[in-house]
Amino acid sequence: MKSLLIHVSKDSLSTALQAALKAISANSSSRVLSGILIQAQTQGLILTASNIRMTIEYKLPVKMDSMVVHNTGEIVVPARYFYEIIRKLDPGLIRLEIVESLILNIQSGSTQFRLCGMDVAEFPRIQYIDHPNIQRISMKNTLLKQIFKRVVFAVSSSETRPVLTGVLLQIEKQNIRVVATDGIRFAQHVVESVEDYGAIPLDVVIPGSTLEDLLKILNDDADSSTDLEIGPKQIRFISNGLRVQSALLEGTYPSVNNLIPKAYLSEVIVKKDRLLHVVERISILASESVMLSVLPSNMLSLVSKTAEIGDVKEEIPLEHLEGDHFRVAFNGKYFRDILRAIDSETLRIRFAGKERPLVILPVDASSSTLFLITPVRTHD
Amino acid sequence: MKSLLIHVSKDSLSTALQAALKAISANSSSRVLSGILIQAQTQGLILTASNIRMTIEYKLPVKMDSMVVHNTGEIVVPARYFYEIIRKLDPGLIRLEIVESLILNIQSGSTQFRLCGMDVAEFPRIQYIDHPNIQRISMKNTLLKQIFKRVVFAVSSSETRPVLTGVLLQIEKQNIRVVATDGIRFAQHVVESVEDYGAIPLDVVIPGSTLEDLLKILNDDADSSTDLEIGPKQIRFISNGLRVQSALLEGTYPSVNNLIPKAYLSEVIVKKDRLLHVVERISILASESVMLSVLPSNMLSLVSKTAEIGDVKEEIPLEHLEGDHFRVAFNGKYFRDILRAIDSETLRIRFAGKERPLVILPVDASSSTLFLITPVRTHD
Repeated sequence: MKSLLIHVSKDSLSTALQAALKAISANSSSRVLSGILIQAQTQGLILTASNIRMTIEYKLPVKMDSMVVHNTGEIVVPARYFYEIIRKLDPGLIRLEIVESLILNIQSGSTQFRLCGMDVAEFPRIQYIDHPNIQRISMKNTLLKQIFKRVVFAVSSSETRPVLTGVLLQIEKQNIRVVATDGIRFAQHVVESVEDYGAIPLDVVIPGSTLEDLLKILNDDADSSTDLEIGPKQIRFISNGLRVQSALLEGTYPSVNNLIPKAYLSEVIVKKDRLLHVVERISILASESVMLSVLPSNMLSLVSKTAEIGDVKEEIPLEHLEGDHFRVAFNGKYFRDILRAIDSETLRIRFAGKERPLVILPVDASSSTLFLITPVRTHD
Repeated sequence: MKSLLIHVSKDSLSTALQAALKAISANSSSRVLSGILIQAQTQGLILTASNIRMTIEYKLPVKMDSMVVHNTGEIVVPARYFYEIIRKLDPGLIRLEIVESLILNIQSGSTQFRLCGMDVAEFPRIQYIDHPNIQRISMKNTLLKQIFKRVVFAVSSSETRPVLTGVLLQIEKQNIRVVATDGIRFAQHVVESVEDYGAIPLDVVIPGSTLEDLLKILNDDADSSTDLEIGPKQIRFISNGLRVQSALLEGTYPSVNNLIPKAYLSEVIVKKDRLLHVVERISILASESVMLSVLPSNMLSLVSKTAEIGDVKEEIPLEHLEGDHFRVAFNGKYFRDILRAIDSETLRIRFAGKERPLVILPVDASSSTLFLITPVRTHD
C-alpha cells in the first residue's frame, strides 16, 4: 500500500465532495458503499462514490497552490464524516495523508482528524471497457439539462414496471426525443439539435434518479458540454473532470405514440402562472381529483372536494376557446407538476373526450413539448 | 349560533396565525386541539390555539381597510389547513363567513374555500380568573428575551424529573435570576432591572417549551413590553394583542447554590469564537466525551475519540492562565450549547478539581451569567 500524501484547498475539495456524494444514498446497505474512494494519482485527486445503480467520479487535476500530490495512494473513508469534517475546517490548504495502513490523517492549521478507513479492494470502480458497440455523442450542458428537466418529473415512482422509472432518450441525426410516463401522466420533449449525431439511432432508457442528480451536478455554463458514452447496459456522462456512470434500464419502453389524441373536440388557451397558482391552492385540500370545467361564461373553473375537510372552487378567465364546453376530472398534484415544468407564459389544453387524455402544450414556438394527463372517472 | 362575517387582510391574518400556531404541536392527540378557534367580536378578531400545556391567543383589533367585523360569531377549523389556505391566497382582503352551521367560507378574489368546522364548546379558553394571589409585573421585551435566551437551552429534555424541564424565575425588588439545569449542565443569569418589582418575592418554574415559543413570537422593539400575570398554577404573558397562557411546573426546584464551586484551582481565558469553532468541529465525530487539557505550552488542547470512526485533536492558544495545568473530560454537545449561548468575545473557564463542575463565565461586565458542566469520569 502506497502512502497517499497531498495538499488540497478546502474549496476545491468541498466542491468535488458535493458532486461525488450525490451517488450516496442516505441509507446505504453495504458499509463500503457508504464510503468514498480517495485516490491520489500523479495527475490529480480522484473521488469516487457509488450506489448500486450509479457511480460518480470527480477528478481534481494537479494545480499549483490548490492541489499538490506528494505521494500517490488510495483509501476508502466514511463519506458523511469526511464531508462534514472538510466542511467545518477553516479555509485554506488541507493535508491528507495515509498513516498506518487504514487511517487517513486530515490536517488543517492546528486541527488534526484521524479517520478510520475501509478496504479499497471491495470498492466498485468505473470500468472503462472499450466495447465495439459503444456510441459516443457530445451535447452542450444547456441542451442536455433543458431536455431532461422538462420530462424527468413524470417518471414512475413505483418499481412495479422498472422501465417506467426511467426516461426514454432517442436520438437520430439531428433529432432528439425524450419521453417519461408513469401510465397516468406523460411528458415528451422533441428538439432539433444544431449538431448531427449520425444515422445510427440511439434508443435507451436512463434511470430518472440518475438524471435528477445529473441536473444538480452539471454546470450551466453556455460553453460547457458533456460527452455521453452509451454501451449496451450502461451510460456514462463525462464533463469537466466529472464522470457519472449509470446502469441503463432494461425492458421495452411502451409505445406511446397512439396515446396522443390525433384530433380534439375543444381547445382552450390560459395564462400559465395564473393557472399554476390556482392549482397550487387547490392542492392544499389534497383531494384525489380536481374537476376542470370550461364554462359558458368563458371561464375555466376548477373544483376540488375532500370529505370531512371541505371544498374549494376557483375560476380564471380563458384567453381563447375553440370548440365545445367540457368537463373533466384528474389528479391535481400531477397537473401541478406538469404546470411547474412549463416555462412559457401561456398554454393550450386540448380535450379529446371524457375517456381520452387531456393534452397540455406550452405556447412556445422554439421547441415541441407535450404533456398528457389521463382523466379520473367520476360519477357525474 | 351567530353567523360570523368579517373582512381581514391576508397579511394581518397570516401574522396572527403564525403566532397562534406555535401552540399547536405537530401530532396533537385530540382532534379539537389540532384546530384553531376563530372569534369575531365587535372589537376585533381573536385567534386561539392550544395544546395541553399552553394556550396562545392573538387579537387583531378592528381597523379600517384591514379588519372589519360585519357579524360576530365563532368557529373552530383545522389549523394547518386554514393556515395553508391563507398563506396561498393572493394578497388583499379575505372574506370569512360562517355558512350553514359548521362551515367556514373563505373567499378572496375568485377563490372560494369551504372548510369544515368543529364544535366550539369543546375548545379550551384562556380563563381570566381574578385570583387574589395573582402577581403582576411588566418587563421590557428586550430584557425578557435576553434573560430566557441565555439559559433555556439547558433545561432537561427528559420527563423523569418534570421540574427540570422548566426554567426557574426568581424576582425580588430589582433582582431577577433565571436558572436552568438538567443535572449535568447548569445555566444561571442574574440581572438587576431598572424597575423595582416590590418586596413579595416571585419564585416559579416556567416550562422551557413555552419560553422557546415565546422567544420566537415576542417582538424585539425597544419600546415593547410584556405584562406577566402569575397565579398559583399558571402564568400569562400579555403583549400587543398577544396572550400566552401556560401551566407552571409543580415541584421543588433543586437548590443549586452549593453546586457552584466557591474556590478554584485554575482559571484560563480563551477567545469564545475560536473555541466554539473547535468544539463544533470536534462534535462531528459524535463522541460521548471531549478531553480538555491545559498544556505547559500555554495551549488549550481538545481531544475526542470514537471507536471505529476515528479521533480528532486541536489546540488553541490561551489568553491567560492562572494556577496549575489541568485535564478534564465532558460532553462535547453540552459544551457547544453553552458556548453558543455566550455572546461575549472571551470567556473564563474555572477548574475546581476533577470531580467538580467546570465553571464557564463570559468575560462581560454588564451582566452576571454562569454556566456549569459536570465532568465525565475517565480512566486516565
